[in-house]
Amino acid sequence: MTALQWGGRFSAAADPSLIAFGSSLEEDLVLAPFDIACSLAHIEALEGGAIVTPAVAKSLRTALEAIEIEIADGTFASYARALGVEDIHGAIDARVRELAGSSGEWLHAGRSRNDQVATTLLLFVRDRAVRAAHLARDLAGAIVERASVELEAQTILAACTHRQPAQPVLLGFMLAAWSEPFIFAARRFLSVANEAAATCPLGSAALAGSSLPLDRDRAARALGFAAPSRNALHAIGNRDAALDLAHACVRAVIDASRIAEELIAWSAPAYGYVRLGDAASTGSSLMPQKRNPDPFELVRARAAQLVGSYAGALATLCGTAPSYQRDLQVTKAQAIAVVEVALAVLAAFAGAWEGVSFVRERMESAALEGYTVATDLADRLVMDGTSPREAHARVGAEVARAESEHRALDATYDARACVAAKRTRGSTAPDDVRQQIVSLEHELAALGTRL
Amino acid sequence: MTALQWGGRFSAAADPSLIAFGSSLEEDLVLAPFDIACSLAHIEALEGGAIVTPAVAKSLRTALEAIEIEIADGTFASYARALGVEDIHGAIDARVRELAGSSGEWLHAGRSRNDQVATTLLLFVRDRAVRAAHLARDLAGAIVERASVELEAQTILAACTHRQPAQPVLLGFMLAAWSEPFIFAARRFLSVANEAAATCPLGSAALAGSSLPLDRDRAARALGFAAPSRNALHAIGNRDAALDLAHACVRAVIDASRIAEELIAWSAPAYGYVRLGDAASTGSSLMPQKRNPDPFELVRARAAQLVGSYAGALATLCGTAPSYQRDLQVTKAQAIAVVEVALAVLAAFAGAWEGVSFVRERMESAALEGYTVATDLADRLVMDGTSPREAHARVGAEVARAESEHRALDATYDARACVAAKRTRGSTAPDDVRQQIVSLEHELAALGTRL
Amino acid sequence: MTALQWGGRFSAAADPSLIAFGSSLEEDLVLAPFDIACSLAHIEALEGGAIVTPAVAKSLRTALEAIEIEIADGTFASYARALGVEDIHGAIDARVRELAGSSGEWLHAGRSRNDQVATTLLLFVRDRAVRAAHLARDLAGAIVERASVELEAQTILAACTHRQPAQPVLLGFMLAAWSEPFIFAARRFLSVANEAAATCPLGSAALAGSSLPLDRDRAARALGFAAPSRNALHAIGNRDAALDLAHACVRAVIDASRIAEELIAWSAPAYGYVRLGDAASTGSSLMPQKRNPDPFELVRARAAQLVGSYAGALATLCGTAPSYQRDLQVTKAQAIAVVEVALAVLAAFAGAWEGVSFVRERMESAALEGYTVATDLADRLVMDGTSPREAHARVGAEVARAESEHRALDATYDARACVAAKRTRGSTAPDDVRQQIVSLEHELAALGTRL
Amino acid sequence: MTALQWGGRFSAAADPSLIAFGSSLEEDLVLAPFDIACSLAHIEALEGGAIVTPAVAKSLRTALEAIEIEIADGTFASYARALGVEDIHGAIDARVRELAGSSGEWLHAGRSRNDQVATTLLLFVRDRAVRAAHLARDLAGAIVERASVELEAQTILAACTHRQPAQPVLLGFMLAAWSEPFIFAARRFLSVANEAAATCPLGSAALAGSSLPLDRDRAARALGFAAPSRNALHAIGNRDAALDLAHACVRAVIDASRIAEELIAWSAPAYGYVRLGDAASTGSSLMPQKRNPDPFELVRARAAQLVGSYAGALATLCGTAPSYQRDLQVTKAQAIAVVEVALAVLAAFAGAWEGVSFVRERMESAALEGYTVATDLADRLVMDGTSPREAHARVGAEVARAESEHRALDATYDARACVAAKRTRGSTAPDDVRQQIVSLEHELAALGTRL
Repeated sequence: MTALQWGGRFSAAADPSLIAFGSSLEEDLVLAPFDIACSLAHIEALEGGAIVTPAVAKSLRTALEAIEIEIADGTFASYARALGVEDIHGAIDARVRELAGSSGEWLHAGRSRNDQVATTLLLFVRDRAVRAAHLARDLAGAIVERASVELEAQTILAACTHRQPAQPVLLGFMLAAWSEPFIFAARRFLSVANEAAATCPLGSAALAGSSLPLDRDRAARALGFAAPSRNALHAIGNRDAALDLAHACVRAVIDASRIAEELIAWSAPAYGYVRLGDAASTGSSLMPQKRNPDPFELVRARAAQLVGSYAGALATLCGTAPSYQRDLQVTKAQAIAVVEVALAVLAAFAGAWEGVSFVRERMESAALEGYTVATDLADRLVMDGTSPREAHARVGAEVARAESEHRALDATYDARACVAAKRTRGSTAPDDVRQQIVSLEHELAALGTRL
Repeated sequence: MTALQWGGRFSAAADPSLIAFGSSLEEDLVLAPFDIACSLAHIEALEGGAIVTPAVAKSLRTALEAIEIEIADGTFASYARALGVEDIHGAIDARVRELAGSSGEWLHAGRSRNDQVATTLLLFVRDRAVRAAHLARDLAGAIVERASVELEAQTILAACTHRQPAQPVLLGFMLAAWSEPFIFAARRFLSVANEAAATCPLGSAALAGSSLPLDRDRAARALGFAAPSRNALHAIGNRDAALDLAHACVRAVIDASRIAEELIAWSAPAYGYVRLGDAASTGSSLMPQKRNPDPFELVRARAAQLVGSYAGALATLCGTAPSYQRDLQVTKAQAIAVVEVALAVLAAFAGAWEGVSFVRERMESAALEGYTVATDLADRLVMDGTSPREAHARVGAEVARAESEHRALDATYDARACVAAKRTRGSTAPDDVRQQIVSLEHELAALGTRL
Repeated sequence: MTALQWGGRFSAAADPSLIAFGSSLEEDLVLAPFDIACSLAHIEALEGGAIVTPAVAKSLRTALEAIEIEIADGTFASYARALGVEDIHGAIDARVRELAGSSGEWLHAGRSRNDQVATTLLLFVRDRAVRAAHLARDLAGAIVERASVELEAQTILAACTHRQPAQPVLLGFMLAAWSEPFIFAARRFLSVANEAAATCPLGSAALAGSSLPLDRDRAARALGFAAPSRNALHAIGNRDAALDLAHACVRAVIDASRIAEELIAWSAPAYGYVRLGDAASTGSSLMPQKRNPDPFELVRARAAQLVGSYAGALATLCGTAPSYQRDLQVTKAQAIAVVEVALAVLAAFAGAWEGVSFVRERMESAALEGYTVATDLADRLVMDGTSPREAHARVGAEVARAESEHRALDATYDARACVAAKRTRGSTAPDDVRQQIVSLEHELAALGTRL
Repeated sequence: MTALQWGGRFSAAADPSLIAFGSSLEEDLVLAPFDIACSLAHIEALEGGAIVTPAVAKSLRTALEAIEIEIADGTFASYARALGVEDIHGAIDARVRELAGSSGEWLHAGRSRNDQVATTLLLFVRDRAVRAAHLARDLAGAIVERASVELEAQTILAACTHRQPAQPVLLGFMLAAWSEPFIFAARRFLSVANEAAATCPLGSAALAGSSLPLDRDRAARALGFAAPSRNALHAIGNRDAALDLAHACVRAVIDASRIAEELIAWSAPAYGYVRLGDAASTGSSLMPQKRNPDPFELVRARAAQLVGSYAGALATLCGTAPSYQRDLQVTKAQAIAVVEVALAVLAAFAGAWEGVSFVRERMESAALEGYTVATDLADRLVMDGTSPREAHARVGAEVARAESEHRALDATYDARACVAAKRTRGSTAPDDVRQQIVSLEHELAALGTRL
């Protein structure tokens, strides 16, 4: 028995090296459980249309359930690899025919790999989008928790722009800022999950629909979709949900990379603002004294890599005619790879985050040096009626003088006074930060109920 | 008077060639009207906090309104270029000081370029996202209209996958499929517009909030935001909305590029499925007979270009520490460029679409040749109890025979019969296509009410 | 025994999930034979500096040779995976210590993973660059061979620009054009191989060189490098050769993708210019009549994917401080992946090319239709003294007339006359094409002597 | 007179908004002087083939020389913009016809925009590649000069990997390392310039060569090419040189971005290793004390942007059929844009580099803290017969002890001793660094003779 799902018209056998070149099996293996679900739903559609007998349906279901176990226990992957098939769908199809005998031939009735792949991919997207939402929310939660602890400790540091000290802020305020992108990410992941559950391509067949009376509503319901898709041709060539998830993943990893960059900088002795736990650093094979922030460096590099991978996925679609072209296999593989790498990155970032401890005294002593109070001094002049431009110039000149005389700007006005003086909503003033944290906690709780 | 907004601390003048290198003025010019709006709102915040007198506020408003006119009539651009400023914000600031005298100095009280840039960019995003939604919806509408016309004409063609004839479908069905991505795009653009109107960064100052009592609620209201942003540090370094719009733009242009590819192929004499109006084609400087589908080729190439530009925008953020780094200027410029190019592409695509006419007889005669009825013949065997695999193999062998004998598969079953035989929702069966079009029209109308 | 190559300073064990996240073992496996070569050369450096005894050196060599066999027979990969190491270098190091006992500890004397990785990667680059040069040259050769055959057959076709018929040319001329990029690619690959053999990083240690008297010249010679590298710090952070190879690979695959696109178009029935052998096409699981040009579609999609992957590799370096950062691990993995995929694509393209047969009569009948002789007619007017612009306009108008009257332009002047009339070097005139092919064959032969 | 170079066959006028969409004039303006050169060479080809009379040739030359002046004095750009032409070539063509009357019609004899664009672009590439080689070499020279100064001053610092102190090195050694990529870049740019001067496409006409007896050798000679191109079809669709230059540019900017990152880090007060001159920094509109390393941040961001732009250029070619498609206009525009931005970045980087001063005492005091001598201590144990692994572990444990007791590792062995102890070629030992600098200076001088 050949494992290929076609061939009647061909006289020569396919070239095995070209089959290998064309195979997406390795990238597809993660789709296996979703293909089972898709096939079970297709049986509903076949039954609903009275296309298969209950006996055939039962036999197919028994086979699929057996394969589900082989997938879960890891034996199916080696079976599939040995077959020399083009993809996971072919592998499962072959195994069904082995297990269900002649009934097995009926599983593919009225189904094309086109609608099968599109549906399976959506199921994968829904699963991973929810997982990603969990990861992002939990990460945001872990950061907010630290924000709360550091707010209580009143830890202060000099916030930088352009890596130059800008203004003193509470570390709790900064951590609250760091949590925001992951809340946004969690919302975005949920929105991808919802979008991916909107319409079910199954029953679109190759592109035109089927002349078999498949019960598409029943299949869609069985898989938890809101409705069958509207147009078969569009449904089978549409990769929007997978791309949206991949994009959301890239963006979340970029957000993580920005914080990673800060933590790498801060773990250098020049700053000494954080200490990475032994569990979150690595050593050197040559230099015995090293303690390297590798997990964070890898998060940073993965962001750059994923930007490229996502661009590659998009580029496979540029100028690719609508409907199915084999190029979409690469689009799919890229999207899957982006998602899987990103989930690993977010999990690793969360793990490494646990190993971060803040060295409050280093932060605070640095915050009290320098001229980060300058803006507030200028603001005080403004409140006393000096024009902002004049105030800016005057304090600027005073900074230049103080710097040349190696002294502070104004002994009576330090970083803590500066923080306390803020009067706008969303500022680093302690009371405002407290409110921000409460608001973040509410949002996290609300997200929790949607997961 | 210097046009730079800083300098008190500096002894040497900035190097003009480095200022030129650092200037974002050219990319920023499109932001000018939004910076005016932002500044008007900041006056509200200053008034609400009693930081400026009513007289100063009035004088600032008068100046800004005058500049608004200079922007609209095009004179402001050359003024700004002559100034040698770093960005549009500096140019407007300089002009305000010229027009409003000493009052002009107060416009920047409690404001940093950081919150100013973030707010102005959001206003730009909202404007362009709505414009893009209009373009996408109108394009979808134009395609659906054609779908309706071709459905009435019962135009038939061989739909392809892999550029090989797959199954006969109605052209109306195919056009309905082509409209779907633009409906999706319109919805996505609207969602970006909404997200961009959620929270207003103005009043976040450099990153810590301000010690001036700015009325942030009043400013946010004046600009049509739902609320002031929650955390100043996050607000000033966040470029999510601009990136989301750029991404939505790239995706919509990719969708257009896929259709463009098909139209380019179809306009070749080998197909002859479409004829491009004189207005939508170009000639050759050497070859007098040429009629080239240039607008569609450029749409295709622009998609590829924009994928790269968007990747570049994302890459500027990878490993860029949170808060403001100058790198974000490039992120902003790239995002703006992607959006502006994409809007031009969508408009050009819509224009070129008007010049497309379908050559029904070429489509139909091709549809009646070949073996695209094979799937349906196999399905008939399946309905009669043959297993799908057996049916597939049997018809495949029959195709091989017919091909070698240069004859059709089954004289009684042609492409039209094939189309009529479809029984699943979302298929190419005429009645189903009619329903799809009604559903699309409803969705277009619903989108219209949100615009 | 721990498999990690560091740890003396650490109190807590490394987190296994973070070690897994940080492991590059899977991407590294292809480097195994090159790491053996690198280690053998390092033994030369140690012996040359009298840092190890001959007995230790012998014992290390014996161990490395044993591991070389385990790598070749495939058993080493599973050994390495079971170890939980960070990379292939650590795996081989661990195995050396198992096999060579206390002597094994000496292999890493004076060596850092930094110089080891840099050297091993260069050896990989040299190997793959030569392989790629072979593939590109052989592909060019295969295309030139076809050019020669089709020149003899005087096969003619209408060359297109913008997918519109432009001018009649010989197929041999077109195929000669198609071979050019692969000759360029072969030259480029050779140049990368040479550049990668210029200087040897081994002995640069972590970044500063070593205080052990390593004999760097001897090590460089043993590995076939022209010299040791000039500056240790630059040597360990330099990834130029790997990126250059990756880039050359991407470009060659893009070249292949352009021809693939043409073959996909030509294999559609609308053209029917080529027929793909059964071995080079695939069928459909649903549609029995299909013969899809999948290998060529995948070549096309892989080009797009690799563009993204290469961009990702470059992006990992943007703003990454000089010297070694862990980000470079991702750079390396991306570069390796691009190279390995590209080699597979070029091999598959060459394989699929073998299955292409040209349908001369379809090409020729299409070449004789249409108005592709228009340019030559205009040129004849020019030779008779009409100004080119006037000639262009006159023939253009004549095309419009002929088209509306459904007739040819000039019955006495057909495509063959047009081809024969060319008078410039490099043109499609048969004699000139013959010379081009001779020149290409000479260049291929010259390339052969360099491989 | 219409400015379009075609139209005879068309009944309706081209849609002006589509012409605008299709115009590459803005991106093309930099090509103007090269198009003049190309046209002058084409006149040689026409004369050589006796296609035009000497009088016509003279009149064409006079017109082109007049236009050359208009280009140089900047008036041509506005002329061209007002015309509404598709590209610079059309603009110059139109102006020639204005200036040369009926003779002007002859300039385009036997020429297509295809070979004209290909040739003009190569001339641009040659010019810019040489410019880039100068910039890269001068930058390398400026860095080597600093290396020399700092070597004399024996400035020492702790070199980092992973941003963690690794080993003490001489600043002169580090700067020598920094110069290497720009020497490599200069060589690469020269190699691109040479490759771009190899073969001249002019006379390839649209794709098939011409039936006019153009003297291609004479044209190629006039433009300084080694020979006419071998195959017309390949020549007109080949964009290799422009892409190679763009790629070399991206790589050089990435190299600059890596150094920029280090300088940004070092200009932070936490390091204080460098001070940026007033001319190379910018201030803040709100914070009077700021001194921001903006030029270096922009270099970093531009690297990321250019990676994306180059990827976009490559993506426009993926799956684009060989010969000319309009997509190549975007490829060209992207390549030009990458080159122009990169040249500006390299010049700005060189300018900002001049403003960098090293704060030796900060570097040195940091180098003497910490445990960066650990590797050398372990190496000493190795030289005394301890196995490397044992030595690494023993010193690692000693670091942990010393750290907990807040003391140095070994009072008798400090950073300077460590630097002096290096014994391998290419190391940071002062004598070796001196040799490296001599070698670099020789290479710079050799490069100078090739420029």
